[in-house]
Amino acid sequence: MSEQTVSIRTTGKIIQSPCGPIIHGLEDVLVKITTISDIDGHTGRLWYRGYRIEDLAENTTYEEVVYLLLYGKLPSARELADIKSRLSANRELNPATIEILRALAKAHPMFALEAAVASEGAFDEDNLKLADALRAGRYKQEEKDLALRIAEKLIAKLPTIVAYHYRLSRGLELVRPRGDLAHSANFLYMFFGKEPDPLATKAIDLYLILHADHEIPASTFTALVIGATLSDLYSVIAGAIGALKGPLHGGANEAAVKSYLEIADPSKAKEIVEAATKPGGPRLMGVGHRVYKAYDPRAKIFKKLVEDYTAKFGDPQRLYAIASNIEQAVMAHPYFQQRKLYPNVDFWSGIVFYYMGIPYDYFTPLFAMSRVAGWTAHVLEYWENNRLFRPRACYVGPHDQQFIPLENRS
Amino acid sequence: MSEQTVSIRTTGKIIQSPCGPIIHGLEDVLVKITTISDIDGHTGRLWYRGYRIEDLAENTTYEEVVYLLLYGKLPSARELADIKSRLSANRELNPATIEILRALAKAHPMFALEAAVASEGAFDEDNLKLADALRAGRYKQEEKDLALRIAEKLIAKLPTIVAYHYRLSRGLELVRPRGDLAHSANFLYMFFGKEPDPLATKAIDLYLILHADHEIPASTFTALVIGATLSDLYSVIAGAIGALKGPLHGGANEAAVKSYLEIADPSKAKEIVEAATKPGGPRLMGVGHRVYKAYDPRAKIFKKLVEDYTAKFGDPQRLYAIASNIEQAVMAHPYFQQRKLYPNVDFWSGIVFYYMGIPYDYFTPLFAMSRVAGWTAHVLEYWENNRLFRPRACYVGPHDQQFIPLENRS
Repeated sequence: MSEQTVSIRTTGKIIQSPCGPIIHGLEDVLVKITTISDIDGHTGRLWYRGYRIEDLAENTTYEEVVYLLLYGKLPSARELADIKSRLSANRELNPATIEILRALAKAHPMFALEAAVASEGAFDEDNLKLADALRAGRYKQEEKDLALRIAEKLIAKLPTIVAYHYRLSRGLELVRPRGDLAHSANFLYMFFGKEPDPLATKAIDLYLILHADHEIPASTFTALVIGATLSDLYSVIAGAIGALKGPLHGGANEAAVKSYLEIADPSKAKEIVEAATKPGGPRLMGVGHRVYKAYDPRAKIFKKLVEDYTAKFGDPQRLYAIASNIEQAVMAHPYFQQRKLYPNVDFWSGIVFYYMGIPYDYFTPLFAMSRVAGWTAHVLEYWENNRLFRPRACYVGPHDQQFIPLENRS
Repeated sequence: MSEQTVSIRTTGKIIQSPCGPIIHGLEDVLVKITTISDIDGHTGRLWYRGYRIEDLAENTTYEEVVYLLLYGKLPSARELADIKSRLSANRELNPATIEILRALAKAHPMFALEAAVASEGAFDEDNLKLADALRAGRYKQEEKDLALRIAEKLIAKLPTIVAYHYRLSRGLELVRPRGDLAHSANFLYMFFGKEPDPLATKAIDLYLILHADHEIPASTFTALVIGATLSDLYSVIAGAIGALKGPLHGGANEAAVKSYLEIADPSKAKEIVEAATKPGGPRLMGVGHRVYKAYDPRAKIFKKLVEDYTAKFGDPQRLYAIASNIEQAVMAHPYFQQRKLYPNVDFWSGIVFYYMGIPYDYFTPLFAMSRVAGWTAHVLEYWENNRLFRPRACYVGPHDQQFIPLENRS
């Protein structure tokens, strides 16, 4: 194919190289067309398949959102019942995976999640069958249906992996999934080993809904890059989990809660915010976002949940009070106003997890439990018009260095 | 930052979208500056750190190449002795990882490799220490040295994972690494449980040298995307392994050997090649390359090794004879000449593995054992000037769909 020149608009940093310009971090570079989710960072809006996140948060459950993301439409009552029953039928893990979680009981759960997902992939006959079909160049209706089934299995199994790992890490008996419970209720049941409180269940479900997709952050991009090699869907998700682990991606809600605990006193909020505007001052966790230059719509929704939760169960560490005061001070301060830095969803979401008794290490696994829906939806969409990602580097070193035998090297 | 327009040259396919052009698969898009490796696809040349692959193949061992890729220079005798001793000191696995390999004995080794790498990462104190430093924004000399130590550990451990998995999959006793053997000899020793033949050792070492880096194919890009989130180096490598699994990336040498076995008779080569030029004809495995539009320099080197190997050990399945005849017919045929389709390294490399008795499933793990050097070198280089990869998708769906309550949906 002949060479052509393409004009790309970006707000990112350009690195000049002898081979041409490099858009650092591929900022604003388009890699696919999508109908899955859209973000308007300037007005602070988020849509899944065209539905506003506020409507979905208020009216749906995570299972409906999974159906919406994977199948492109909200399910009918019958379709919802079907996907719920498929999800609950696929929750249990292969015995080999349980062995692996046992071996990794002392490991950080994100490593365990990576390993367990790879393990499940090796034993899922559908996964191996689809990988064979892709290898042979087939991706017709039969394979697309298979891919959807596999995506559902991954969505069904991640909560079990997370809950089993938690229990094994504490030396507790495993609590097997209960088919009569919905996705989020069953997760809390497996995790804590008892019937969950309805408001706690709602908190988990809301968190899962709000994080299910967000266009193409680094973990979704990882999923696409692996998926485009026609590797299998479990390897895709294991890789995306590896990317979500990175502190530049997942993990900010943990940092936010820790900072509130350190601040300890709501009356100190204003002074902390003031200090954060000074050079070398503390960084405010959960404030600002690479895409949102307005109040994160997810933050607004989850903040309300935190209010309800602390109203019902109390706020012994004053985390809501502290966060609330920080938010007020941030919103009122010209420094943050001018820079369009607003609290994001991570600013609020850790508080409920903390009060529920979910350890910090399991915050990012919860993120993975949600985002697996978006990861799989994006890869399935990309496979419709697949192309291996094969960017280039600009080589600026020497050529044809003279080889020096080992004995003559200094 | 204000918006700017960047002109990018590409030979790739352009997808027009309402948001702007999409370069499908990021073909020719530059993502970093490098001094690690360079490919001249038109003349068929490959350099590591400026050294021609032919010189390295003839004069070095894999350990020297690892040093060259990671440290940017060929080692002195002393530096080589040091890195060899560090590599051999780091070969053993954590007991938890061995448990995991046992649980995955019946799984494809690439899944086992993903899981085992994640497991080792969870227990490597240096890895966790570096991840904490990166999280805190530190990447100074101390962290760079730590990153090099971790990269060496990954390079040291991958052969052990592969060999242990092979032995467990066959119900054989594990053969512990032997500190007095060099990298490749020790691998064959752990794999087959006996002192390896020198020519077999040379074959493995040559394969590892030839595949140690190749600029930015999909697996290296996966490593960069994960690495740029500041996730840990083991998660980076587990993700890259997931990408290498994809049939559009790794795995072509297995397909080539299988096709030779199917052809079975060297005299049929010419007719097969002729058939491959016809619409709907068979695909010739190991012919053509996304970057090389000339004879792959690695193919030339490995072909010579196959000649030596079959001269010494025989060619009972006539694989060398078949491949040789196919190559001759391809090189003489105008169809392939016009399209600049030449045999690539995969065309030759599977034959020796096959005759050595290495099962097909372990061909891609051998690729991973080699490329881990390039993966880690590229991520360490990228961390010097790190930027999260955050491309965009162009959303073409509807907005603000009216929400319909569940009971009213059809």
